[in-house]
Amino acid sequence: MFQVDINADLGESFGAYKMGMDDKIIPFISSANVATGFHAGDPLVMEKTVKLAKKYGVKVGAHPGFPDLVGFGRRNMKVSPAEVKAMVIYQVGALRTFCIANGVELQHVKPHGAMYNMAGKDVAMSEAIIEAIYEVDKDLILLAPLGSEMINAAKKKGLKVALEVFADRAYEEDGSLVARTKEGSMITDEDLAVSRVIRMIKEGKVETITGKDIDIKANSVCVHGDGEKALAFVEKITEALKKEDIAIKPMGEIVK
Amino acid sequence: MFQVDINADLGESFGAYKMGMDDKIIPFISSANVATGFHAGDPLVMEKTVKLAKKYGVKVGAHPGFPDLVGFGRRNMKVSPAEVKAMVIYQVGALRTFCIANGVELQHVKPHGAMYNMAGKDVAMSEAIIEAIYEVDKDLILLAPLGSEMINAAKKKGLKVALEVFADRAYEEDGSLVARTKEGSMITDEDLAVSRVIRMIKEGKVETITGKDIDIKANSVCVHGDGEKALAFVEKITEALKKEDIAIKPMGEIVK
Amino acid sequence: MFQVDINADLGESFGAYKMGMDDKIIPFISSANVATGFHAGDPLVMEKTVKLAKKYGVKVGAHPGFPDLVGFGRRNMKVSPAEVKAMVIYQVGALRTFCIANGVELQHVKPHGAMYNMAGKDVAMSEAIIEAIYEVDKDLILLAPLGSEMINAAKKKGLKVALEVFADRAYEEDGSLVARTKEGSMITDEDLAVSRVIRMIKEGKVETITGKDIDIKANSVCVHGDGEKALAFVEKITEALKKEDIAIKPMGEIVK
Amino acid sequence: MFQVDINADLGESFGAYKMGMDDKIIPFISSANVATGFHAGDPLVMEKTVKLAKKYGVKVGAHPGFPDLVGFGRRNMKVSPAEVKAMVIYQVGALRTFCIANGVELQHVKPHGAMYNMAGKDVAMSEAIIEAIYEVDKDLILLAPLGSEMINAAKKKGLKVALEVFADRAYEEDGSLVARTKEGSMITDEDLAVSRVIRMIKEGKVETITGKDIDIKANSVCVHGDGEKALAFVEKITEALKKEDIAIKPMGEIVK
Repeated sequence: MFQVDINADLGESFGAYKMGMDDKIIPFISSANVATGFHAGDPLVMEKTVKLAKKYGVKVGAHPGFPDLVGFGRRNMKVSPAEVKAMVIYQVGALRTFCIANGVELQHVKPHGAMYNMAGKDVAMSEAIIEAIYEVDKDLILLAPLGSEMINAAKKKGLKVALEVFADRAYEEDGSLVARTKEGSMITDEDLAVSRVIRMIKEGKVETITGKDIDIKANSVCVHGDGEKALAFVEKITEALKKEDIAIKPMGEIVK
Repeated sequence: MFQVDINADLGESFGAYKMGMDDKIIPFISSANVATGFHAGDPLVMEKTVKLAKKYGVKVGAHPGFPDLVGFGRRNMKVSPAEVKAMVIYQVGALRTFCIANGVELQHVKPHGAMYNMAGKDVAMSEAIIEAIYEVDKDLILLAPLGSEMINAAKKKGLKVALEVFADRAYEEDGSLVARTKEGSMITDEDLAVSRVIRMIKEGKVETITGKDIDIKANSVCVHGDGEKALAFVEKITEALKKEDIAIKPMGEIVK
Repeated sequence: MFQVDINADLGESFGAYKMGMDDKIIPFISSANVATGFHAGDPLVMEKTVKLAKKYGVKVGAHPGFPDLVGFGRRNMKVSPAEVKAMVIYQVGALRTFCIANGVELQHVKPHGAMYNMAGKDVAMSEAIIEAIYEVDKDLILLAPLGSEMINAAKKKGLKVALEVFADRAYEEDGSLVARTKEGSMITDEDLAVSRVIRMIKEGKVETITGKDIDIKANSVCVHGDGEKALAFVEKITEALKKEDIAIKPMGEIVK
Repeated sequence: MFQVDINADLGESFGAYKMGMDDKIIPFISSANVATGFHAGDPLVMEKTVKLAKKYGVKVGAHPGFPDLVGFGRRNMKVSPAEVKAMVIYQVGALRTFCIANGVELQHVKPHGAMYNMAGKDVAMSEAIIEAIYEVDKDLILLAPLGSEMINAAKKKGLKVALEVFADRAYEEDGSLVARTKEGSMITDEDLAVSRVIRMIKEGKVETITGKDIDIKANSVCVHGDGEKALAFVEKITEALKKEDIAIKPMGEIVK
């Protein structure tokens, strides 16, 4: 039987600032990427989010980012591999400890924003991230897209990986995401987005922006919960997956 | 045979800012209180400090503080018990994870500065701190002075405590420290400071600021490493302890 | 003819975090208290908010707070008078410079949250705030409530003051606000809230929580723009003021 | 008669963290670049540094940087021109207000660290910085090295510029600094460093790393005050300048 994980970014509120609709999206997902206080989130929000995930049986992952709250971790920063390694240990460690305190296991790590993007093409940064994850807990899963240098580094180190795909993004022929700045980078037709995801899961294929079919592997689909429209799409895609007999399961039950 | 732990605050540097003389003081101490990034310290400094402690066989403790870098965690902040609990889990968790990554055990927790002082007299804050420590790892030791509400909360919860004494501070009749603002609060005569500590350990007594003897228990002596004078005193007191056949051991071997 | 200023807190967004409905409330107010980056706001938000105020002909004030973003400046902090003075000069200076850059004048200063509340009863903190404002620009107006120590300090220094009243808060017999923790502190009946404000302006009287009438002076009414309900109330009160022939004017045209 | 300005970075301490030897270097310089709270400095330090400069008759400049305290503003950050403009207005405005509060004039602006380096080759970032400075006060002087895009942007806008040279750095043929990572980038022979500076001032020439002479203009020499060795060099170079009858004057008296 076919199976896939559904992941979303949660716990992005900060102090008096609310972001996202965590309560609304959590019933639809199987894995949560929880912000760890550098680009978003704070200790109270992290605790609350871990408890929310526990209540819904959703698996918890760490979503570490650059120390850039005002830029929401989306601005590239020229940090050294040693700095990245230490900041990932710090953040993943903090979230993992909220998991310990609440009797749940930390399942995975997905770097956030600019760290996710920069590491995708930066071998040294990727190796630093993977060393950090490995030293914290070698049973953690890296969540990253096909073609990311993080995947290569994880495999070299012996860390499990879950391959992430995006319903709303177009793909290049090498399996990487089409840059947001490029025409046609976003899949705006929701039915097309859903059918593309189903094909990725069932056939292991996706049509690239150039019209060519390529092989792709989808362990986890990334969805968003930051608005009514995003929520409606999550409902739509999860219904479609069920109708297609694709089981929604946490990535930890899929990649072993 | 008599025994005592010697503790000092380490890892208080931040980015390009250097503080303390960690390399110089570490040969003399048995336990290090490592700053955890809120009032001092940063991920790289934490990693480096844990490695330094490992190299010298010094036990590591977490030194969590208020989120007040510019005030060095020394300014009272009216935070809720829920906020304190979450910030302690976050910080202790981050440092504990650097310990995991470096194959050493986290031994204890000593709240820093204003948190240490406020909790001393605040039952709700003390209970929040103790709950946090307990949920992170119930084998951790609380390092705090006699008379602190943290001691009461720890005993209620079943957490181990190590009693901290100060060589350079005068005591009130109830065993609490004389406020720094009060005349005579500091013991400036170094020989007197040393002999007071030895008496605390061997006789379990200290003469208070009023001239009366009270019972005191000294599991760990706090020393400073922030200047040549402080370092000279540490050398002096550790030599005196050896001459008196008082063994210097990490608190984890003393309180069990 | 009767006249009053309507003030609201604006520019409280931070990076990707949106707060308040500045675009919606600004047509109804005459003075904006703009956050200055310590408890809320960031440079881009400050610039945008000054431009928005300029567009609507709304006067700009600075809303400095404690350096506590995660606590939104609402947590009491034990800062020294020298620290408060410097942080007020810094924040008011930064906002005043956005005004200069946009060709508008800074009209007033209203300390935020815990600073506003603590200074209300703290002579040294109030004097530090007033010295800061005075040194930045002695023509600035202090916006504060009757009974606040800031008012006393401002008068002593020769700084202009605008007296702030609250439509939704009950008053004690000494003219201070009833603490939020006390039963009956909030005026929830909107019609009553409106009629109380009109009476404050026209008769200079308000009925306290004890049922006694006291004298009060209302130069500026504080309103909120953080939700549909708050906005509806602002619309209601501004309509009522117009019907009563009370002119809405910036405080700078009222206190001279 | 020949003349030159001597500038140094001051006010880089932060809270309990001390950096630099401001008291020792200030007697030797004519212009101080004062940190403005984003990469270093805090409100209290800024106030103290402005007072120190005033006492010594040293002119004050703003030294704005990226919002990266842990990285000391030395890490490249991909910020938008709008973000840079707003962060420069904020920081320069804050420092300028400390000048107003202390009755001195702000003389110049020198972007710090990664902002200085990135803007050197980034037209859009340079234009954003220059717009910010211009909008704050069009009489401010930009302090930057020959070849920096900031110089071009300043000239286009009509802002005064002072050309900065470095005694301890080698030059490329295009007048730019040899990258620190390159062999031979630093001039370690102090006598050579001094004679190079004197030749830049008197002859307007410098020998590049390739051995070729190029034209250079030296309005201000950058010196460091972060150690005994740095201080000794400052003493040496100022003595040499006096012996050569080169007057040391603030840049504001040199570029008009």
